[in-house]
Amino acid sequence: MRIERAMLADLARGAGFLGSGGGGDPYYSLLLAEAALKRRGPVELIPLSSLVDDALVVPCGWIGAPTVSVEKLPNGREAVAGLRRLETILGRRIDAVLPIEIGGGNGLAPFVAAADMGVPVVDCDGMGRAFPESQMAIFNIRGLSACPSVVTASCGALTVIETDDNLAHERIARSLSVALGGIAHMVEYPLSGAQARAHAIAGSVSAAIATGAAIREARAARQDPFEALAEALRATGLYPHCKTLFDGKIVDLERETRGGFSVGNVIIDGFGGQGRMEIEFQNENLIARQDGRIRAMVPDLITIMDRETADTITTERLKYGQRVKVVAAAAPAMLREESALRFVGPRAFRLGTDFIALENLDTAETK
Amino acid sequence: MRIERAMLADLARGAGFLGSGGGGDPYYSLLLAEAALKRRGPVELIPLSSLVDDALVVPCGWIGAPTVSVEKLPNGREAVAGLRRLETILGRRIDAVLPIEIGGGNGLAPFVAAADMGVPVVDCDGMGRAFPESQMAIFNIRGLSACPSVVTASCGALTVIETDDNLAHERIARSLSVALGGIAHMVEYPLSGAQARAHAIAGSVSAAIATGAAIREARAARQDPFEALAEALRATGLYPHCKTLFDGKIVDLERETRGGFSVGNVIIDGFGGQGRMEIEFQNENLIARQDGRIRAMVPDLITIMDRETADTITTERLKYGQRVKVVAAAAPAMLREESALRFVGPRAFRLGTDFIALENLDTAETK
Repeated sequence: MRIERAMLADLARGAGFLGSGGGGDPYYSLLLAEAALKRRGPVELIPLSSLVDDALVVPCGWIGAPTVSVEKLPNGREAVAGLRRLETILGRRIDAVLPIEIGGGNGLAPFVAAADMGVPVVDCDGMGRAFPESQMAIFNIRGLSACPSVVTASCGALTVIETDDNLAHERIARSLSVALGGIAHMVEYPLSGAQARAHAIAGSVSAAIATGAAIREARAARQDPFEALAEALRATGLYPHCKTLFDGKIVDLERETRGGFSVGNVIIDGFGGQGRMEIEFQNENLIARQDGRIRAMVPDLITIMDRETADTITTERLKYGQRVKVVAAAAPAMLREESALRFVGPRAFRLGTDFIALENLDTAETK
Repeated sequence: MRIERAMLADLARGAGFLGSGGGGDPYYSLLLAEAALKRRGPVELIPLSSLVDDALVVPCGWIGAPTVSVEKLPNGREAVAGLRRLETILGRRIDAVLPIEIGGGNGLAPFVAAADMGVPVVDCDGMGRAFPESQMAIFNIRGLSACPSVVTASCGALTVIETDDNLAHERIARSLSVALGGIAHMVEYPLSGAQARAHAIAGSVSAAIATGAAIREARAARQDPFEALAEALRATGLYPHCKTLFDGKIVDLERETRGGFSVGNVIIDGFGGQGRMEIEFQNENLIARQDGRIRAMVPDLITIMDRETADTITTERLKYGQRVKVVAAAAPAMLREESALRFVGPRAFRLGTDFIALENLDTAETK
């Protein structure tokens, strides 16, 4: 599929939802990607299944606190600088790039590099949504190495990381993102085509585009964008369940930038006597409780959206008084496997509960 | 000069003094260097003036908090791993190594790599003592780039840093040292032979050996080791003034590991009604005040030593009740130039005073 500049806004809208509140506000990433495609022309989006075994494909994305990303702007060359260095290290050209996470601005990040380098983007990603930490990528869950990885910053600094330990890699990269001002670009988990085919989450880029388009079309047709969103998500096959959990007004918000993350919680007062919903986040929304009862939890998606426009409100954009709907969606099946829940389930975030799937939660006993 | 294993203890003793309390306790570095020379034989110490213009010579040393270095032991391969990677990056072999700082354990660090790689150590260093931060090296003062640099850790993690900004380089390397557990090895400021000849502090390794030998010999002959130390330092030509500032007992000590440094201050009660001396440190001793009057300050050396043996007590080894002498020495002339004081003078450490040389302080009005 040829991605024209005009399609990027749909991608941004869909990736915003899939970010579960994180992955960075898509706005600046959209501007950068639009500028890149204007400069270089359309980018090819190729199916994951089309990769040959020995292709070199590389995930791209930003690491850091989204609260910083909206204030400290990129220079636009970070991704290419990192990818070119990786080519030098590996002694070969990169055949294609992909988003390390489809969610938020990171869903658009590889399009800048793809346009500038003249390579395609693979229709897949490493998280099926957005997660706050590098080792939460499916590639770590499946035992692949994050390294060599390359971290680049808007000041021009470049660092290469090599370690066999993907948790140490996250710790090192996180501290670099802090030292570099709170946000940096990283290329990591360089993959062979065979590895990508076996482990990446297929179809997530086109799923984001379809989801974003559905919201846009529903708005234009004066239909309910939330219904259109749910239908589009189900149609992707990747996100089989979706429901609107809550409808209300933000009445309290605690948020701080700590340890390289944006962490906190938000409280929403329901309209029509629905009670209250509290959502905890670490870059991404992690768990939603309604009057103490869990309604959704990681790795399932929880996204807070403007209740009129269905625009996603990322965690760094939350404000007192916003009128919102909270929408949850089932995570892709690969993230709900036992081996994945070790890294991306509620206990990985110290939430004190086992994972219960969104579609089972309303009948399950939880508190 | 051929450095035999038996000479390393003198080097450790002398480097201990030149560390001004920092550079890491020489004990473990001595064990590692002795083991390396036992394994591989003696190491050549070559004069700085013997380097050909296009030689590649590389400073080595540990970065981090000395308080951590005495608890988290190296695996012994950190320096070689970093140097080998630098060779790959630069596409050529390293001709010789040198200590980034002669002070403390870092004065011995390059001997491990030199023995294992079969290259000589150059009789020079980058600080003429020890300083807590990377940009305090003479190579930064003289406008050379720290990068590419390679940080390696005992866990096997390796990171390459590239930036034109040596202050950013220090910030990045410091945060890496923290992420890697508080201490890491770094090769930085790769130099041509011509650059090393123009800017390195010549003769500091042999000065450390001579100083350490003088203390040992004085002890064996039951002479005053402090007099022997002062005489040996003056004889080097590098450290033209030396005096014992104070003699007393440690009665108070505040020390914490913060931001990747060991910081604090120590109070010494004088014997024979001398009053009190307070010394502030950031890895290294920075300023010594006797009853409020400044007696010595960076970049001049201030070292706290056991009052009987003249063994250096590095800042992380200070303890309540130790009976000590405080010895100060004039820094090498290159460190007292105006351009150097910007980076290593008292204002670089926010000490609120201009630099006054040790030999002028007792007559100057200070408080």
